[in-house]
Amino acid sequence: MPTNVVSTSGRNPLAQKVKLSTIAEALGLSTATVSLALRDSPLVAEATRERIKEEARASGYIYNRRAASLRTSKSGIIGVCVHDMMNPFYGEILTAIERELDRQQHTFILCNHYDQLAKQRAFIDTMLQLGADGMIMSPAIGTPAADIRLAEENDLPVTLVARTVDGVEVPGFHGDDRRGMRLAVEHLIEKGHRRIAMVGGDDLTSTAREREAGYLAALEAADIEFKPEWRLKGARNRHGGFEAAPRLVALSPLPTAVVCYSDLVALGLMYGLSRAGLTPGEDIAVVGYDDIEEAEIATPSLTTVANGQSEVGRLAARSLLARLQGEDIPLGTQLITPTLRIRSSSEYRPFTLQRTEAASRHA
Amino acid sequence: MPTNVVSTSGRNPLAQKVKLSTIAEALGLSTATVSLALRDSPLVAEATRERIKEEARASGYIYNRRAASLRTSKSGIIGVCVHDMMNPFYGEILTAIERELDRQQHTFILCNHYDQLAKQRAFIDTMLQLGADGMIMSPAIGTPAADIRLAEENDLPVTLVARTVDGVEVPGFHGDDRRGMRLAVEHLIEKGHRRIAMVGGDDLTSTAREREAGYLAALEAADIEFKPEWRLKGARNRHGGFEAAPRLVALSPLPTAVVCYSDLVALGLMYGLSRAGLTPGEDIAVVGYDDIEEAEIATPSLTTVANGQSEVGRLAARSLLARLQGEDIPLGTQLITPTLRIRSSSEYRPFTLQRTEAASRHA
Repeated sequence: MPTNVVSTSGRNPLAQKVKLSTIAEALGLSTATVSLALRDSPLVAEATRERIKEEARASGYIYNRRAASLRTSKSGIIGVCVHDMMNPFYGEILTAIERELDRQQHTFILCNHYDQLAKQRAFIDTMLQLGADGMIMSPAIGTPAADIRLAEENDLPVTLVARTVDGVEVPGFHGDDRRGMRLAVEHLIEKGHRRIAMVGGDDLTSTAREREAGYLAALEAADIEFKPEWRLKGARNRHGGFEAAPRLVALSPLPTAVVCYSDLVALGLMYGLSRAGLTPGEDIAVVGYDDIEEAEIATPSLTTVANGQSEVGRLAARSLLARLQGEDIPLGTQLITPTLRIRSSSEYRPFTLQRTEAASRHA
Repeated sequence: MPTNVVSTSGRNPLAQKVKLSTIAEALGLSTATVSLALRDSPLVAEATRERIKEEARASGYIYNRRAASLRTSKSGIIGVCVHDMMNPFYGEILTAIERELDRQQHTFILCNHYDQLAKQRAFIDTMLQLGADGMIMSPAIGTPAADIRLAEENDLPVTLVARTVDGVEVPGFHGDDRRGMRLAVEHLIEKGHRRIAMVGGDDLTSTAREREAGYLAALEAADIEFKPEWRLKGARNRHGGFEAAPRLVALSPLPTAVVCYSDLVALGLMYGLSRAGLTPGEDIAVVGYDDIEEAEIATPSLTTVANGQSEVGRLAARSLLARLQGEDIPLGTQLITPTLRIRSSSEYRPFTLQRTEAASRHA
């Protein structure tokens, strides 16, 4: 298989002469075994694969995946595209995806689309051009169904995480955002809160719309009349939460509790509330969403909704790999059930209207 | 150039028939122009390129970069490998790299090595196999010079960021860590501190060794005798900083100030100090390192050393791209000059020994 050998280097002339047969002879193995091992085939025992790769590395042999993929049309590459991998919410999904793909010897190629459709399209194009096996995406805001279909119709199967796209029938995994936010608001109502604000998120993502719907549903179920000024939209990261604090504090009467679009928004809001002289958890209750690692060590520790990021990542990767192996995979969205994690930031209990009325009756 | 057209799909038979000439005819352009435009050649005006790509997309044409790269041996791919892209320090470097590469139409392929040499090697192999044009790396702890040389000798030029590898002569960019930490400690000494601890980092990375050297040098220059118990090693992230707090608080006498290996360590330490009942900035001075975005909005806002991550990323990308275009590039490490950012977390001034002595003389 001389096409496997790339003449890559003018500086290392020896490398050009190394062939599969050279490695095979050195190790006393068949050329076929060496070839399979260098393509990470499970047909070759892992210890043998490692030995072959060591020998290949030592001898300067470079396996040319480009040439190989033209023959087999399997590159071993999975493209993964999210809004922003520096956001720990996505980071935790990515870590879980990576762990699954590593186990199955797939290469993981990452991209931030920053909610820019052009950037997402360029990445899909690159994946098509490299002959990637599949993609896992948290689609950019406003992704048209046609962009997903373009990939699917060109043998680049897509799995969605965290967000959905209307009009496409592909596997998708995300937390049940409506239910999760409802749990958060119900927890506050049980502690006696009646003036509950919601900070962050906007109407652009399915995630934010679902979380807002859960917030409104919980208020309605408890016969609490929603006040439009309680809904402070926009913030989507720590900085946005910080900047929302003065707007929240300016409300009169001040809400006694606030649920946030995400943990990052809540953590930024808590920084901002502290600057305004309020102690979160003592003067006002704050609840986040996602249960990122920092929620537990924040001071005060953050009450939040565990949204199953690791499960989302794991299930998405497994589903895609199963589909690539020809298994029948359910299309459509699978919701992960969220769980409330109660910590110190929601310890504050307000004087409720009922108690105040009772007190005035006794007076 | 029929080899440009991939027969990717059994599901979309139309796509197989689209050729460069089809697109050229539809737009009234030459086939050569279309070919150049689809390879993002600057020889074609940007507006024309966009029009051609729109038409190609609409008609279902897929440009096959794999086939093309076998001919030109330029894939347009740059591999980027860091410890952990979820760490905002690396995130800010990556953002700057991405911005530069975007401008020059390069594809950016990312990988975390989590300081695992095997993972870093697998990524280098993948980049060689895909025919990447070059790599930007923050090398894993213990990276042998041979791993960098393997890439270089196979026409995969390497640029290092944030960390160095002994025994290799490649371009590298990072902040002057020794000087930066010295600035931080000198600031505390000027405010009257004499018991200054250093939390986080270990002996494994060049970064941490340099920062520790700067800390020790500043103490020595001020004739402050270093106490081994002031050096709390190990913490490298927010969680590590949080866990170091009880160890710091247990010291007797308690240091009046602490410099941290990084902002993340400092932010975690401040969470931990608050839990222990100390208010950072009022009861103890805390200084971070890196000036990540969060430093400014943290409460208290974090005094820190701006380490030039954006400049590191920008210079590294520009240097690599210039080298790919055949320009002569200086090998070896270029240090970025750090700047101290003074904020609230270092407002606390201790009663110094001098004042105490003065007070007792007056008594």
